Amino acid sequence: MVLTERRWCLQMSKHAFPTIERDAVYRAIFERRDVRRNFLAKRIPQATLERILKASHHAGSVGFMQPWDFVVIRDKKTKQSVKHLFTKANDEASQRYRGSKAKLYRSLKLEGIEEAPINLCVTCTRQRGGPDVLGRSTIRETDVYSTCCAIQNLWLAARAEGIGIGWVSILDYDALKNLVGIPRSVKVVAYLCMGYVKEFSLSPDLEKAGWRKRLPLEQLVHYETWGRKHGNGNVKRTAKR
Amino acid sequence: MVLTERRWCLQMSKHAFPTIERDAVYRAIFERRDVRRNFLAKRIPQATLERILKASHHAGSVGFMQPWDFVVIRDKKTKQSVKHLFTKANDEASQRYRGSKAKLYRSLKLEGIEEAPINLCVTCTRQRGGPDVLGRSTIRETDVYSTCCAIQNLWLAARAEGIGIGWVSILDYDALKNLVGIPRSVKVVAYLCMGYVKEFSLSPDLEKAGWRKRLPLEQLVHYETWGRKHGNGNVKRTAKR
Repeated sequence: MVLTERRWCLQMSKHAFPTIERDAVYRAIFERRDVRRNFLAKRIPQATLERILKASHHAGSVGFMQPWDFVVIRDKKTKQSVKHLFTKANDEASQRYRGSKAKLYRSLKLEGIEEAPINLCVTCTRQRGGPDVLGRSTIRETDVYSTCCAIQNLWLAARAEGIGIGWVSILDYDALKNLVGIPRSVKVVAYLCMGYVKEFSLSPDLEKAGWRKRLPLEQLVHYETWGRKHGNGNVKRTAKR
Repeated sequence: MVLTERRWCLQMSKHAFPTIERDAVYRAIFERRDVRRNFLAKRIPQATLERILKASHHAGSVGFMQPWDFVVIRDKKTKQSVKHLFTKANDEASQRYRGSKAKLYRSLKLEGIEEAPINLCVTCTRQRGGPDVLGRSTIRETDVYSTCCAIQNLWLAARAEGIGIGWVSILDYDALKNLVGIPRSVKVVAYLCMGYVKEFSLSPDLEKAGWRKRLPLEQLVHYETWGRKHGNGNVKRTAKR
């Protein structure tokens, strides 16, 4: 629907977005949060859910494979069972920390499974498109990479809709597959909790809690070769070679 | 910069974006393309590149691990060497197809390594944050998943900036590491070609070329359990259990 509405815009400008639209994209990116608390009971309308899933489905995929599936879970009993899987995995995970870190870990809220109106399981069907998916012969995991790109799409679309999403990775995904009836050959990539929220934090929860700091971007950007920290566009290495 | 400018907005509305902003997010999502042709020679300003990389860096990551690094490549010699790696891998990949599919495969343009002003290698440093990254004990690959989410952020930010990106997966990433001096312990997740483009296609190249069709979304959405195809929000299964 959005596509059709905006097609005129695509015709008019094939290039950069107008500033207001560009900033909106950055806004979604910077204000997206991994949400595990403050979910509201408010129902997500089916049309909104479908818009978000459509956004996800429009991610690029290796060889146009579209390997993803989405299982929408609203059933309370299923959520209870998944919460049980989380508690088990989290008890094990918490054993890894000692002292103040252990105390901090136990104080963190790491899932919103039962509070979130919708839980969404995103999978990757690795056989889709047959054995010779274009672009996948060299790096087999590109199908999973595509699925993660689709997840980021839905995360950003949800933020624009005012819906928070939290990714629960502390789960036995094989046990989860049994619970939701996902075939053995299908890979679970993410289990997401989603719902309208009371608020989106100004900064990531783990940053706020003092668990870990955001790294300076400069530290992560290299020019021409790993470890080279200046990039002025006029690369001296070119002249030397 | 964008963050600061928009903070008033965050204060005003903690929830859904205004329609114009929401639609801009969807626009970026639906108009993003995997671009391999029509790159312009026009230089990407450093400020624009940094905005895009900052967007990438603001993806969520498991345990706030931020495992990504970015190697910005403008050097023509490096691009030539990478193109050589592509040609080798692609010759091998093309052997997988027969008849009309082989002919179609060979007609496809699958990279824009030398034409794109910037090549960007995105990596995942799996040791970052030590052995006990929060949320990663159950599923180890979540660091790679986070890196893919960061890639989708930069892909969308680039689209809003009028910059096209193409993901080249037909490459020997280990040989690439040698070429760019990436440490052996660091995983290459993506090699991207980026630059301003003459145009963004209305539909994905592989769809246009008749390689593969877009799957109907309904086929990929399940409710409560795998294979269940209706979700009205009033789940009968709840009552039964």
